[in-house]
Amino acid sequence: MLKTRITDLLGIRYPIIKGGMAWCSGAKLASAVSAAGGLGLVGGGSMDPDLFRSQIRKAATLTDKPVGVNIPLTFKQSPDLVTVAKEEKVPVVFTSAGSPKRHTAMFKDNGAKVFHVASTPEQAVKCEKAGVDGVVIEGYEAGGHNGREELTTMVLTAHAAKLVSVPLLAAGGIATGRQLLAALALGAEGVQIGSRFAMTKESAAHQKFKEFCVAAQSDATLVVLKKKIPVRMMDNPFRERIIEAEARGASGDELLEILGEGRPRQGMFEGDLTEGVLEIGQVAGMLDDLPTCAEVIKKIVAEYERARRVLPPVSE
Amino acid sequence: MLKTRITDLLGIRYPIIKGGMAWCSGAKLASAVSAAGGLGLVGGGSMDPDLFRSQIRKAATLTDKPVGVNIPLTFKQSPDLVTVAKEEKVPVVFTSAGSPKRHTAMFKDNGAKVFHVASTPEQAVKCEKAGVDGVVIEGYEAGGHNGREELTTMVLTAHAAKLVSVPLLAAGGIATGRQLLAALALGAEGVQIGSRFAMTKESAAHQKFKEFCVAAQSDATLVVLKKKIPVRMMDNPFRERIIEAEARGASGDELLEILGEGRPRQGMFEGDLTEGVLEIGQVAGMLDDLPTCAEVIKKIVAEYERARRVLPPVSE
Repeated sequence: MLKTRITDLLGIRYPIIKGGMAWCSGAKLASAVSAAGGLGLVGGGSMDPDLFRSQIRKAATLTDKPVGVNIPLTFKQSPDLVTVAKEEKVPVVFTSAGSPKRHTAMFKDNGAKVFHVASTPEQAVKCEKAGVDGVVIEGYEAGGHNGREELTTMVLTAHAAKLVSVPLLAAGGIATGRQLLAALALGAEGVQIGSRFAMTKESAAHQKFKEFCVAAQSDATLVVLKKKIPVRMMDNPFRERIIEAEARGASGDELLEILGEGRPRQGMFEGDLTEGVLEIGQVAGMLDDLPTCAEVIKKIVAEYERARRVLPPVSE
Repeated sequence: MLKTRITDLLGIRYPIIKGGMAWCSGAKLASAVSAAGGLGLVGGGSMDPDLFRSQIRKAATLTDKPVGVNIPLTFKQSPDLVTVAKEEKVPVVFTSAGSPKRHTAMFKDNGAKVFHVASTPEQAVKCEKAGVDGVVIEGYEAGGHNGREELTTMVLTAHAAKLVSVPLLAAGGIATGRQLLAALALGAEGVQIGSRFAMTKESAAHQKFKEFCVAAQSDATLVVLKKKIPVRMMDNPFRERIIEAEARGASGDELLEILGEGRPRQGMFEGDLTEGVLEIGQVAGMLDDLPTCAEVIKKIVAEYERARRVLPPVSE
C-alpha cells in the first residue's frame, strides 16, 4: 500500500493509474492494472461505442477491482462514448481534450469519480473550477497528443501543485519508481502511466510495435504536427516525411493530407512500422523489457521505497 | 547542510550550483551563491578573456568559499577562456558544448574538479569516460541553448542515473525545493539552477529583463532556431519573427541572418525587450519575485526538507 489522497479517493492500493492509450487499452490491460493494485482505464479513443461497451463489461468480469475509462471529448464518436460510460455506470471517468465543464457534473451525479487532463497549470485550475475530483497534468514528454505549450512534467507538476487543491496525477515521463517518487516530490499524489503499460504482455498493441519501442534509443521520439495537432511519435519513414514537409514550410492542411486516416491503427495495432503512426512517450528510450502489469507495479513500488529511504535529510 | 557526493566533492553545504548563464553570471552573482552555501559559476560565455579574468579575481575577493567557472567550448573566445581558467587555477571548471575529452585531463592535472554538460544519457556516458568528476544533465525545459533530442529532466535524469556512476547534477526546470527533491529522487545528487538565480538581486541581467521574466506566464518560453542552434527564449516581437520565418520554411542560414549578432546582449544585458533575445527557462512562468541568492537557497532547502518528510512510505 502507498497511501495518498488518490488511493483513498479511488479505493486502490497504489496511486498508479494506467492511461487510456489508443490501440493498447482494452479490457485485458485495464483489468490487469486494477487487479495489481493500480487503476486501469479502458481507452475509448480508439474504439467505436459497441466495442467500448463490450470492453467495459469484459473488464468487470476479469477483476473485482474498479476499472475506469478514458474518453477524449473531441472525437466524432465522443458523444456516444459518453453515453456508454453513463449507461454502464463506470465508477471512474477520465476525460481529455475539450472542456472539463462539459460532462463533469453529469458523471458525478451518475456516481463516478471524474478526472480531466490538463497540459498547463491554468487548465488545471479550470478543471478544479469545473468540479473534478482530480486532475491529470500531462507533460511534454508524454506520448501521443501533446500540449502546445510544451510544459514538461518537472515544471508543470510543481507549478500546478501551487495553484490547485484537488489531487494531481503527474503524467509524461513516468515509468519507474524513481519517477513516481519525483512526481510525489513535486506535489502530485499519484501518476498516470502510458508507455510503460503499453509495453507489457497485456497491452493490445501489436507485438512488432512493442518490440520496436523496447529497442528504441533515447532520441527516438519527437513531437511533430505542431501546426495542427502536436503528437509525440517514434522515428520511422512516415515521420521522416512529416518532418521533411514541416522543414520546407508545409501548411497545416498539407500535413493533415500527408497524415491521412487510420495511421495510428496501422502502426500501433497492425504493426506497420514503416507507414504507421507510432505514438509513444520519450521514456520508451529507457525501457528494455515487456513484463506483465503486475511485475511493472511491483518493481515501481519497490524502487520507490528504496529511493525514498535514502533521500538525504537536511542537517546542521 | 544537505550532504551528497556533490557537497563532499566540492566542499559546499548544499548541492546547489548556479549555472554560468550568459549576461547574468559575473563575480557578484557567483560569489553570492557560493557565500550562501552553494557553488556559483562565473559564466565565460558572454565575456572576453580580460573581463573573465577580472571577474574570477573579483569573485575570490567577495567570498572565502570556492567559486567556479563555466566555459562553452565552441565559441570564438573559448581557447582564451580556457587559458585564463588554467592560469587562474580556478578550483571548479564546468565545460559545455564541444567534447568533454578536450580539456578534462588538463584541468584535473591543474587541480580543478571538472564537470561537463550533457543533454542525452549517451553524452553523459561519454563525459564519464572522459574522466570528469561529475556530469550536468540538462533537460529540454532549460533556458538558452538546448539539446536537439528534447529530452526532459524527468526522463534524462532517471535514464542517465542508470548508466553513469559519477555524481549527476540535474538542470532544467529546477527552481524550488520540491524540484530539488524530485531531482534527487530521480538519482541526481545535486542541481544546477539557472533561471531562478538569473532572477535575483545579484544577477547582472538588466532589471527590465528580470521584471519581464517575473511577469511571464507558464507558456511564455519556447525553443526556436532548431534548424541551427536550438535556444529557449521568451516570447517577444523578435521571437515572433523567427517563428513566422520557421513556419514558412526558412532555411537555417536565413534564420541566422534574421538572428544577426549581439541580440542576447541587447535583450538580457541592455534590456531591449522588443528586439533582443531573452533566454530563460520554462520555469520562469512559476516565479514571481526577485530575492537575494541567500534567500533563494534558504527557501529551497527549507521546502526540500518539508516535502521530503511527508513523502508517503510503502506499508502493508
